[in-house]
Amino acid sequence: MPYGYNGKILRVNLSTKEVKVEEHDDYFYRTYMGGAVLGAYYLLREMKLGVDPFDPEALIVFAPSILTGTPAPGFSRHSVVCKSPLTQAIADSQAGGFWGPELKFAGYDAIVVKGKASEPVYLWISDGEAQIREASHLWGKTTGETQTSLREELRDDKIRVLAIGVAGEKLVRFACILNECKHANGRLGMGAVMGSKNLKAIAVRGHDKIKMQDKDTVIKWAKWFSQNFMDNPSNAGLHDLGTGEGLMVLNKDGQLPTRNFQTGFFEGAEGISAETMHRTIFQKGEGCYACPVKCKRVVGADKPYQIDPFYGGPEYETLAALGSDCGVSDLVSVAKANELCNKYGLDTISTGATIAFAMECYENGIIAKEDTKGIQLNFGNADAMVKMVEQIAKREGMGDILAEGTKRAAERFGKGAEKFAIQVKGEEMGMHDGRVKGMVGFGYAVSPIGADHVVVEHDTDFDFNAPDIFVEQMKSLGLLKRCKTTGMDYQKLRMFRYLQFHFSFMDSLCLCVLAFAPVRTFTMAHLVAIASAVTGWEMSLWEIMKLGERRINMFRAFNIREGFTPDDDWLPQRIFEPIKTGPREGARYDPDELKTMRKLYYKIMNWDPETSIPTKAKLIDLDLPWIIDELEKVGKSVR
Amino acid sequence: MPYGYNGKILRVNLSTKEVKVEEHDDYFYRTYMGGAVLGAYYLLREMKLGVDPFDPEALIVFAPSILTGTPAPGFSRHSVVCKSPLTQAIADSQAGGFWGPELKFAGYDAIVVKGKASEPVYLWISDGEAQIREASHLWGKTTGETQTSLREELRDDKIRVLAIGVAGEKLVRFACILNECKHANGRLGMGAVMGSKNLKAIAVRGHDKIKMQDKDTVIKWAKWFSQNFMDNPSNAGLHDLGTGEGLMVLNKDGQLPTRNFQTGFFEGAEGISAETMHRTIFQKGEGCYACPVKCKRVVGADKPYQIDPFYGGPEYETLAALGSDCGVSDLVSVAKANELCNKYGLDTISTGATIAFAMECYENGIIAKEDTKGIQLNFGNADAMVKMVEQIAKREGMGDILAEGTKRAAERFGKGAEKFAIQVKGEEMGMHDGRVKGMVGFGYAVSPIGADHVVVEHDTDFDFNAPDIFVEQMKSLGLLKRCKTTGMDYQKLRMFRYLQFHFSFMDSLCLCVLAFAPVRTFTMAHLVAIASAVTGWEMSLWEIMKLGERRINMFRAFNIREGFTPDDDWLPQRIFEPIKTGPREGARYDPDELKTMRKLYYKIMNWDPETSIPTKAKLIDLDLPWIIDELEKVGKSVR
Repeated sequence: MPYGYNGKILRVNLSTKEVKVEEHDDYFYRTYMGGAVLGAYYLLREMKLGVDPFDPEALIVFAPSILTGTPAPGFSRHSVVCKSPLTQAIADSQAGGFWGPELKFAGYDAIVVKGKASEPVYLWISDGEAQIREASHLWGKTTGETQTSLREELRDDKIRVLAIGVAGEKLVRFACILNECKHANGRLGMGAVMGSKNLKAIAVRGHDKIKMQDKDTVIKWAKWFSQNFMDNPSNAGLHDLGTGEGLMVLNKDGQLPTRNFQTGFFEGAEGISAETMHRTIFQKGEGCYACPVKCKRVVGADKPYQIDPFYGGPEYETLAALGSDCGVSDLVSVAKANELCNKYGLDTISTGATIAFAMECYENGIIAKEDTKGIQLNFGNADAMVKMVEQIAKREGMGDILAEGTKRAAERFGKGAEKFAIQVKGEEMGMHDGRVKGMVGFGYAVSPIGADHVVVEHDTDFDFNAPDIFVEQMKSLGLLKRCKTTGMDYQKLRMFRYLQFHFSFMDSLCLCVLAFAPVRTFTMAHLVAIASAVTGWEMSLWEIMKLGERRINMFRAFNIREGFTPDDDWLPQRIFEPIKTGPREGARYDPDELKTMRKLYYKIMNWDPETSIPTKAKLIDLDLPWIIDELEKVGKSVR
Repeated sequence: MPYGYNGKILRVNLSTKEVKVEEHDDYFYRTYMGGAVLGAYYLLREMKLGVDPFDPEALIVFAPSILTGTPAPGFSRHSVVCKSPLTQAIADSQAGGFWGPELKFAGYDAIVVKGKASEPVYLWISDGEAQIREASHLWGKTTGETQTSLREELRDDKIRVLAIGVAGEKLVRFACILNECKHANGRLGMGAVMGSKNLKAIAVRGHDKIKMQDKDTVIKWAKWFSQNFMDNPSNAGLHDLGTGEGLMVLNKDGQLPTRNFQTGFFEGAEGISAETMHRTIFQKGEGCYACPVKCKRVVGADKPYQIDPFYGGPEYETLAALGSDCGVSDLVSVAKANELCNKYGLDTISTGATIAFAMECYENGIIAKEDTKGIQLNFGNADAMVKMVEQIAKREGMGDILAEGTKRAAERFGKGAEKFAIQVKGEEMGMHDGRVKGMVGFGYAVSPIGADHVVVEHDTDFDFNAPDIFVEQMKSLGLLKRCKTTGMDYQKLRMFRYLQFHFSFMDSLCLCVLAFAPVRTFTMAHLVAIASAVTGWEMSLWEIMKLGERRINMFRAFNIREGFTPDDDWLPQRIFEPIKTGPREGARYDPDELKTMRKLYYKIMNWDPETSIPTKAKLIDLDLPWIIDELEKVGKSVR
């Protein structure tokens, strides 16, 4: 067995009920490495142009990486890659937890699923053995019921279960996938893709460990992390308060998304803050595989809602999306909505953003009480927000329309609703305001997957707690100084591109951003050292940065094939409108700047500046010459 | 004082006799780092378009790097950068030895010289103090006499002397600069540039050591190198036989440049082989600062020539250029010619190649006995070869024409002599046949400095002794497999580009190729570890590869400014003609392939494919936006 990976990929065809094992060599694994890059490989190779995400022919790939399961913090994640029902573009969403490592322990580096089962099924993988099993008894069940049921019927309570809820079954376009009922591959509707295939869950159990070439080095750095992460103020904050730690700082700075991004200052922010959570409903912190940070929150309450601690507590994105963005300042209501999202398998960001969108439509008379079955869908109505979560998950009433996401719902509503749909390519915007964080706005626009929250830390101002650590760590990338993040600036574009590669390789290697982003505890040198120790390859940051670049180019190639153009790299109208109130009042993103930056970005990527198609030279540079053929064969001109 | 560097650059104006110290910050040193990149920075910033290399306004920069003087093998070198009198393009030539480290110990990171002294002078730098001193007594002296004289008059026999000989004084266009009378900044005529400025020598003495952030790590790897380099067959060969170790292998394979590159098989190769040297004239091995490999040869003989061991022995390039390429199989004659080159300050490669050119002209009736003052300039005439070296150095007789280099001499001779001038951009070709080593041929063509021997190891087949080490080390660059090196192949182009960056960063950091090239003892991970330990910066291979790319782009920008075009990226006619005899008979480089490869290379570099001007995007990517202005201000369109 090689170091770091198993050399085995599980291929599942749900239509034919075939399960087989595919093997690849070292060259394959060192080129694609895992996660989003491995997923994109299969989508580009095997998924035909124009196949609908819900078509049986659509692929969905579940992939940890060559480093996943390594017993050091930050190596716990897996990616799910498919074509998104929300954007019709390539989709990549990551989850932490325990499922990715378990899949590795069970002998596989990835699962590639296609086809559609005639009846509900689940996949059971146990120490290399894989079975497609009947799941009618699980259909309609919550994620928690599903997990409990599977652990019982398979008689092992250490089984790791990845499952969808009713939202995925009902093809809600932003349904998510959960493991442990609280770690979500949240975004872009991949839960609905599982649902469309009648695939309720993937249960995994394995007893192997990752084979490492130099375990001592890995353990050494794992220990070092544990001993040192609290010295880093950003990470200490994560440990103490969870990812919501910065919410009040953002609000104070006037950049907390509020009332569907109308403003950046929320007068009720205190109510949904991490500090308030800590003081009131917080029970304990929890972590992912091998991580001492324990940034996850477990919360409980009795009123106004009873909160089941089993489903975890709200992250920053959730606090903002279901809280401030809906004008809701009641933490327990937000926690309840979070619980429902995790039970039913809904992405909390798109859910919150879609409800906020509906609220603005409601307040502007685009939809009325008769449409909402009497729910007063005003900003700030916490009960209405919670009710809407339930309706969306079950596609009841107005929820059936909102379940299509803001872009489609706006088309359905008409009457100018489009301007309230805060989305890029169909994906609702993460809870970071692109008007204030210049590079984030640009990142939303050009991201192949949409306005994803993972582009966030492209912004240098974001890491307000530890600017010196940030600058110091970026130097390894050759980024030697900070630059202004608003307005047109060459340094900014350069920094954007380098950090884009950086964030992209974290997703390709399934690394936790909270362990590995600049400003966090592990540096890039640590990553190179650990990755080399795991694999026995003498890896370099060059090789790893190129992996990040490879992912972005593969994603771009997939979208190009599907017909995307530079026009799709654009921002929603709201981001060009001024922030209405607060310290950042008046801030807006300049569309001319976006146009100029976008063209220069294509050039710096060595893409065709007119079409954004990666050039032949760039695809060769990334050892992807076969993509030239893939594009040319569908009539795209690769120059 | 910062780690690794002094923060001080010595500025010398020989016209005004001004000497001053310039200081730069950390940002500057981490961007430009030293060597060729630092030199190119000054040339681009301060040398006006079209200034002749011999004009007083021309700059010449002597630069070790932030790592030079580090007490580990391979960090001994310094670069000289100027505009070449041979090519009128930018020139970069490296020397090992002891001078670069000594300059660092004396407190400086580089010396930037401009102007012209009214009388011969030398520069004396002692522990930070710098003086321009009178040198009329040294003018006309050999390098050995100069060194001895300076050590006497400055009363310190540990002074390190970099000097020119009579060839530099007489503006021979391929005059070199020597330190210790045997380590040469050999190529491209920089000795003549010193001569044109009446600058005979630079004597240096310093008592500081390099300040290192983590000396223990550096020492640890230095020791590791000493203990392990003999396990690597390539390096053991270097130690035992010197750089000539592979001569017989090349000959056996039919690729030893013979009789002005007419063929690749030399029937007299045995006579000039490293093995023969070892058995006959070899006295001992010698090394550079802090290096245990000791690949330099010390040789001595009495007849047919008396050889002074003081001037060292012939390297591979010298054995081939003055030996096989002239059809000469007598080792003592080659060693004598080598001694004369080092005494008079002549580049052995261009000297040998120019004599070989003259021999072919002679045999084809382009020049005759009356032109050579009776010397029978046939291939194989060892005495004639030795005599011509003397005549070139002193510009006597025919030597005066040959001192202009093959390109200019061919123009002077006319009668089709041009086809016998084996040069690119005016620089005589290194002793590696671009017809056989596909990537080397291409490297000669697109190299900004000409057909330099340092492009050689771009060829994957070259390292015949240890192919597995080679492949293993390349993987850190993301080059995962060998590719064919002849014919058009995407993998080849990609490998070429990555290895070009690699060789370029070695020149930028003034690293020894024989310690750091793939296949040698130190890996890229060692480099990153040592560089980080020296500087205290957390460096990465990404950053270092980008440094290599920066050098190539800066060089290209300089040449573009001077009017170079893609037409200059071309090979001499001979390389398109078949090899005449031997195992590789018939091999030729295909000009159509060169044209196709060249365009694709420009694209993969993100340069304008029509003009080869680096794009705005690429210059931004490399943090060189100021070069956009430098180019635009002389009317070059940067797209």
